Amino acid sequence: MRKIAIDAMGGENAPEAIVEAVLKAKPELPEDKFIFFGDEGKMKELLPADDDQIEIVATTEVILDEDEPVKAMRTKKDSSMVVAANWVKEGKADALLSLGNTGALLTCGIFIVGRIKGVARPGLMPTMPVESSDDGFNIIDVGANATSKPEYLLQWAEMASCYAEKVRGVSKPRVALLNNGAEFDKGDDLHKEVYQLLQDSSLNFTGNIEGHELLQGKADVVVTDGFTGNAVLKSIEGTGSVIIHMLKDGLLNNGVKAKLGALLAKDALKSVASRFDKDKYGGAVLLGLNSPVVKQHGRSDARAVYYAVKQIDKILTEDLTNTFKQEFSK
Amino acid sequence: MRKIAIDAMGGENAPEAIVEAVLKAKPELPEDKFIFFGDEGKMKELLPADDDQIEIVATTEVILDEDEPVKAMRTKKDSSMVVAANWVKEGKADALLSLGNTGALLTCGIFIVGRIKGVARPGLMPTMPVESSDDGFNIIDVGANATSKPEYLLQWAEMASCYAEKVRGVSKPRVALLNNGAEFDKGDDLHKEVYQLLQDSSLNFTGNIEGHELLQGKADVVVTDGFTGNAVLKSIEGTGSVIIHMLKDGLLNNGVKAKLGALLAKDALKSVASRFDKDKYGGAVLLGLNSPVVKQHGRSDARAVYYAVKQIDKILTEDLTNTFKQEFSK
Repeated sequence: MRKIAIDAMGGENAPEAIVEAVLKAKPELPEDKFIFFGDEGKMKELLPADDDQIEIVATTEVILDEDEPVKAMRTKKDSSMVVAANWVKEGKADALLSLGNTGALLTCGIFIVGRIKGVARPGLMPTMPVESSDDGFNIIDVGANATSKPEYLLQWAEMASCYAEKVRGVSKPRVALLNNGAEFDKGDDLHKEVYQLLQDSSLNFTGNIEGHELLQGKADVVVTDGFTGNAVLKSIEGTGSVIIHMLKDGLLNNGVKAKLGALLAKDALKSVASRFDKDKYGGAVLLGLNSPVVKQHGRSDARAVYYAVKQIDKILTEDLTNTFKQEFSK
Repeated sequence: MRKIAIDAMGGENAPEAIVEAVLKAKPELPEDKFIFFGDEGKMKELLPADDDQIEIVATTEVILDEDEPVKAMRTKKDSSMVVAANWVKEGKADALLSLGNTGALLTCGIFIVGRIKGVARPGLMPTMPVESSDDGFNIIDVGANATSKPEYLLQWAEMASCYAEKVRGVSKPRVALLNNGAEFDKGDDLHKEVYQLLQDSSLNFTGNIEGHELLQGKADVVVTDGFTGNAVLKSIEGTGSVIIHMLKDGLLNNGVKAKLGALLAKDALKSVASRFDKDKYGGAVLLGLNSPVVKQHGRSDARAVYYAVKQIDKILTEDLTNTFKQEFSK
């Protein structure tokens, strides 16, 4: 039986939404066992007793969003996140899901779960929506690394391409490099060098991609340095939420006519929103660790967590980590 | 009389939209003379004869969007852009407006018009919209430089702050650094160092800003390295246009009900679109040159060009370039 460690205390809707999501996914995943790390009283209250697929590990501390990551990992030794990470490290669990403090989860991932031998730096990789289909694309790294070297980006591209193929079922994923122009000689030294590395690799490298093309579905995997990737991901999310917020406000606070219009156009507006629903792709994976670590947004509801649980099951089923271990230990 | 050099041949709607825009702005700007560089036959056909505010300089070549910038500048010596830039260099014109090839305009700006003594690198700076007001914000550099050093960013911040104050009328502009977190020690070495430089400057530095906060109106000036700025600007524009495209498509191709809804909600939707209309702020200014050079989008219509003409008049009225010259020659 595969064992998934669930940090039940992270995120705004913890632990209720997390428990609800796992209980919904559980019957679909009979091969998985879910180990909940969190407040014992609350866990017992929310979870069914005598269920072979469920285990509770009582923890007494919680890492908060405002906690400094490294300090939190070192001092909150009985926090749900740190204890869960230790179970993964010790082989008592096979993967870790958390909605908590991103920096702390990256820190626990790198220092407790540990890097795969041969992987220079783990990279954080969400799956993002595209305009033209429900396929989405992966982008790596979106902020696990403030400073990046060419060889990091090559490894991230290799791991993300493997993820796109095995977990998302994309055949020969198109890999593109986020750059400031289409031509091969664009960018700073880092990106010029990465272009050559990708060109010389066995990946299906399709060249540079620019910021405005990201949501157009031109690539299945976009590789970027962690600083730019972080800024770009946040800019896309910020722009989307500002426009949607203004639209809602404009439609609901502009008199009866606009309100009626919004009501009539409801289905059409919903179909746009559902295309841009990135929850259905699961969470962001920290690729390159000894076991899968998945971060889901702190604001996630049960539906988003449900997809992250299914995503982890798929990553384990495809044995992604062992593929990486074999690849990079060469 | 101030003289504005107009590259009449650049952009998708050249020369008609450009001529239309200038003719509209002309009566409002009696102190300005507009020198059109372009095909003589077309210019004479479109422009009134015997007008003290208008002059035509015949050119025979056009730099195309697909031309390689440096090569184009060197070989197309009789192109509208190169000749216009030379007039500015020789003091026969005071500023340059173009809708043409961005790379070529940057090249002509830097190598023909020339840098202000003491400015390490010119930076490209558009004005972008914000959610909460019509004020917008400036972001610099959005791609004139693939590689950036700390001192470049400090100078860009100083010039952009001066622009925000004098041209946009913002008192004590709030200057923020685009970074991957809120805390002072975030980012790579470049951004950590810039944080300190800004902190120690006389600017109204408000700290780091993250990608998702850009459109929220938290800063009047955002300073960023040219690589990240380019990716972020394109990502914001791309996300906006993808969402708007999908909305239009969703509302118009989802049956009668959605169409009727769109009709009723038309004014509300328009008010959202007008908030995100960045044309009203003019074009992107290449700050740090001996004379103002403004780039307007190649797809711009007459309305957008009109605002760019007004913007250039304001830059000249405020004598921004001499302010920079005094500041940086110290």
